[in-house]
Amino acid sequence: MKLGIKEIGVFIPEQRIDNTAKQSKFDFKDTFLEEKIGVFNTAVKDPADDCTDMCVKAFNALNEKISIDKSEIDIIIVVTQNPDARMPHAGAILHGKLDLSPKCASFDISLGCSGFVYGLSTIVSLMKENGFRKGILFTADPYSKVVDPEDRNTSLLFGDAATATLIAENADLCPGKFTFGTLGSKFNEICLVNDRLYMNGQAVVKFVKRFIPDDIRKVVDMNGLTLGEVDRFILHQGSKFMVDIIKEDLGINGSKAPFDIRNYGNTVSSSIPIILEKEMKDKSSRNFLISGFGIGLSWGSCVLMRP
Amino acid sequence: MKLGIKEIGVFIPEQRIDNTAKQSKFDFKDTFLEEKIGVFNTAVKDPADDCTDMCVKAFNALNEKISIDKSEIDIIIVVTQNPDARMPHAGAILHGKLDLSPKCASFDISLGCSGFVYGLSTIVSLMKENGFRKGILFTADPYSKVVDPEDRNTSLLFGDAATATLIAENADLCPGKFTFGTLGSKFNEICLVNDRLYMNGQAVVKFVKRFIPDDIRKVVDMNGLTLGEVDRFILHQGSKFMVDIIKEDLGINGSKAPFDIRNYGNTVSSSIPIILEKEMKDKSSRNFLISGFGIGLSWGSCVLMRP
Repeated sequence: MKLGIKEIGVFIPEQRIDNTAKQSKFDFKDTFLEEKIGVFNTAVKDPADDCTDMCVKAFNALNEKISIDKSEIDIIIVVTQNPDARMPHAGAILHGKLDLSPKCASFDISLGCSGFVYGLSTIVSLMKENGFRKGILFTADPYSKVVDPEDRNTSLLFGDAATATLIAENADLCPGKFTFGTLGSKFNEICLVNDRLYMNGQAVVKFVKRFIPDDIRKVVDMNGLTLGEVDRFILHQGSKFMVDIIKEDLGINGSKAPFDIRNYGNTVSSSIPIILEKEMKDKSSRNFLISGFGIGLSWGSCVLMRP
Repeated sequence: MKLGIKEIGVFIPEQRIDNTAKQSKFDFKDTFLEEKIGVFNTAVKDPADDCTDMCVKAFNALNEKISIDKSEIDIIIVVTQNPDARMPHAGAILHGKLDLSPKCASFDISLGCSGFVYGLSTIVSLMKENGFRKGILFTADPYSKVVDPEDRNTSLLFGDAATATLIAENADLCPGKFTFGTLGSKFNEICLVNDRLYMNGQAVVKFVKRFIPDDIRKVVDMNGLTLGEVDRFILHQGSKFMVDIIKEDLGINGSKAPFDIRNYGNTVSSSIPIILEKEMKDKSSRNFLISGFGIGLSWGSCVLMRP
């Protein structure tokens, strides 16, 4: 049974916060947003919406692209660190809101920017082992719940979004081999302090330089490919600077490694599926590298291939 | 590659709260603790310990039973809804405290009383798909962080504990087929209200009666066994009343379905591995049914077999 990604639904809230209006407050150079952050507006969820409401909207976007018989869904997984509540899991609340079958398994994975990659391996592995035919992997990590608007390091960067990825047979993209990693000794470089997000940007850059390009080389090789045979590098959209570091190290040009978060921001575990949803439409692209990295510190990479 | 449970480490904190001392406050009958709840003392963690500290102690207990080369651990999963912090995941903090390898994958699963069963299927599936040879499934859900001492429905019941289950080849017990289920429409029967645990006991009993005995019959049948061929039914130790309901419905006698939480309480996702750790020592028992059910509402069952 060859399971993979059949289709992706994306929800990005309409409301935006304008980063250019913050220039005097945060005292940054004219070139800072363009060259370093790469974000001019961050997306913010409706205050009335919580994590699972965003998931429902991503499900609706998915359902518009490919009609879903909800009774056929065997499993849902929600990747989030900002669920509606700590108890119960968001997957249960979402299960109720979508009126899914009692036989549908559900749980949450607590991970940030590496979450889509981990979640993909988890849902595909569980589906294969348990003979499940249809599953949906949700990502929704509304950082607007934890970002301090006065914090220059985070408030210019993070945006809210959610995605719903349908996993099934006869897929468009099938995952090959994965790599995973954790640097738990550095867990406090990105964490909550008094319920607000703290991020040590320099430490994160150092971590990315040290681990991520090598990890990408390794996973591409594990999948029997060369870097030149990868058509698209879908990197977690941490910031323009972060993506540029990896591109430079790997020696790949801009069009092969899209960066496209100017109008909504770094959406954590949703950043890879948002870019992938666009890029997978081009059927001439056959091999997609995906790589997520961030809070934990944690990372995961994989190559997705057209069957 | 036949992966399964190699060994289990258990940590139950020393400190106890005496339920008999609460009789006048909560005005319950003399027979109530013995016949309904089945708990005379609840275990409470050291205030200085958080979720991952309890996991370290469960790891130490595991390591005393079977020496572990930490550099060989490919994956850790922490099942919890009461982690040290919402961000990062407990698995990352634990990874740091145990000084595990950077190649070790880690994440948290947010689930309660069904969490060990879900976690077992998840870690085994991921290990098979990714060629991992050694993994540890942790459970640690310190409900003392959310139980209101004045709430009769929950404060007599829940205790703190943690477990660490080593998953490897040449295992003592290998999982067969699993069942899973979710009743998300009833998510608010067990949930946090103002950061305190709320539980509608009657609704939970109704849910257990309706779904769990049938689910156990189904999973036993899926694994090619009859109820009579199951040597031990390791049911989530929700309460004596809850376990009795299931035993009665299935027509199984006491010794085949142990209930043993008098001295520490319902330890959520740790309740099954705590009982299993004891029961698996009896090598004459070959087939173990495990079934977890609770918050979500969520359930999962499986048969573990000696290879």
